[in-house]
Amino acid sequence: MKPLILISNDDGYQAKGINCLIKMVREYGDIIVCAPDSARSGYACAFSATTPLRLTLQHKEEGLEVWSSNGTPVDCIKLALSELCPRKPDLIIGGINHGDNASVNTHYSGTMGVTMEGCMKYINSVAFSLCDYRADADFSPLEPYVRQIVQRVLSEGLPKGVCLNVNFPLIEEKEYRGVRICRMAYGTWGSEVAKCHHPRGYDYYWMMGHYTNDEPDREDTDNWALNHGYVAITPTRMDVTAYEAFESLKQYEL
Amino acid sequence: MKPLILISNDDGYQAKGINCLIKMVREYGDIIVCAPDSARSGYACAFSATTPLRLTLQHKEEGLEVWSSNGTPVDCIKLALSELCPRKPDLIIGGINHGDNASVNTHYSGTMGVTMEGCMKYINSVAFSLCDYRADADFSPLEPYVRQIVQRVLSEGLPKGVCLNVNFPLIEEKEYRGVRICRMAYGTWGSEVAKCHHPRGYDYYWMMGHYTNDEPDREDTDNWALNHGYVAITPTRMDVTAYEAFESLKQYEL
Repeated sequence: MKPLILISNDDGYQAKGINCLIKMVREYGDIIVCAPDSARSGYACAFSATTPLRLTLQHKEEGLEVWSSNGTPVDCIKLALSELCPRKPDLIIGGINHGDNASVNTHYSGTMGVTMEGCMKYINSVAFSLCDYRADADFSPLEPYVRQIVQRVLSEGLPKGVCLNVNFPLIEEKEYRGVRICRMAYGTWGSEVAKCHHPRGYDYYWMMGHYTNDEPDREDTDNWALNHGYVAITPTRMDVTAYEAFESLKQYEL
Repeated sequence: MKPLILISNDDGYQAKGINCLIKMVREYGDIIVCAPDSARSGYACAFSATTPLRLTLQHKEEGLEVWSSNGTPVDCIKLALSELCPRKPDLIIGGINHGDNASVNTHYSGTMGVTMEGCMKYINSVAFSLCDYRADADFSPLEPYVRQIVQRVLSEGLPKGVCLNVNFPLIEEKEYRGVRICRMAYGTWGSEVAKCHHPRGYDYYWMMGHYTNDEPDREDTDNWALNHGYVAITPTRMDVTAYEAFESLKQYEL
């Protein structure tokens, strides 16, 4: 039986990134897509505790089904696993995201929500993101890397409780400088709130932000790799326990 | 100057849990509360990329301000840091949540979203949750523990990039058996989707779920502690890099 690949994203099923991804991986298995009906950027691992959810079949052909949902990226995975997949997927892919999901963005990203949800179901899961927010971003330079990573994960699997957060830099050259296995950089979002005044007389606020890499010289980080033209693969854990803090917290047990 | 304590939750500013928390920690500093205007369970680290946000002052007295917002728990922290706090808080607290945030729930929890957001701003941050979903849950047995943990974090701080996820079991006895520093248990949500039929003729779905502890005999986990009457403190990392997977992924660099 062919591998089953489940795909979702946080930009919506009509986004260029997810449609490029489908073409890139189509030959590696049967594909089920279940993605939000419109953009859900910044939805993280959120699920819909109180909203009734819908599933709409958008397209079906031999080996490919595309569904949309009014839910979050995580809802899409839960719905697909329960209602759409004839068997447990061999691989779950989030993306390809229009925009950077490196560093702390991993915590906010709906694309990483897709991937973490797969990881929590013990299914091999990968997120792909391109550091280009434009709707018409060029995803073609990613193709050989996406193909190689997908083939490798399908054939070798990933360690239990580990998923991959793969980010591609936006480059002017024709080719990436290579691939680096990275850790998440420490970075900070600032200037996150823009205050506006409504014509009816009240204040309201838009979420904005300016990102600062707090360790720009550290060559082992995803931010460094991206800033230097490398594809950044950050292996990411579902177990977020800070084991290194156990010793210093022993006093709390008294 | 008194310490500044910023408080939020995902059950909404009117919930019993957050109001009990305010009373418990009131004496330790100036308190600013900025919490959702209604329940936002399951919002994780989501922020509102496209929704205009509002802030409403609900209550003000010497040393205490209570604000509500139409945003997510994470939005509340970002708004409060930018618009409400006269100085950088010494402590951010999420909770007290009505319900369990142990094991994989840490990824879905808006209470942990509050805490992770604080951690990403390098502010000491703690989440408190009681394994009782009822609106009228009894939070009084938690008081000595909440007070002790808050005092200790205020005086000693936490390691950089580490926050605390503190869960209290629902017990029949009058007292907890003690406090344990735990790791996150591996557990799985199943039966997550309930299909219903709308009178207009279409199907819709509610998110549900049944939790299974995948390692019930492991005494070092938060689930074990909670099942045996202990308060579970799980130190939690903002750096979710799976360092242990680096070696096995080296081949991806080729």
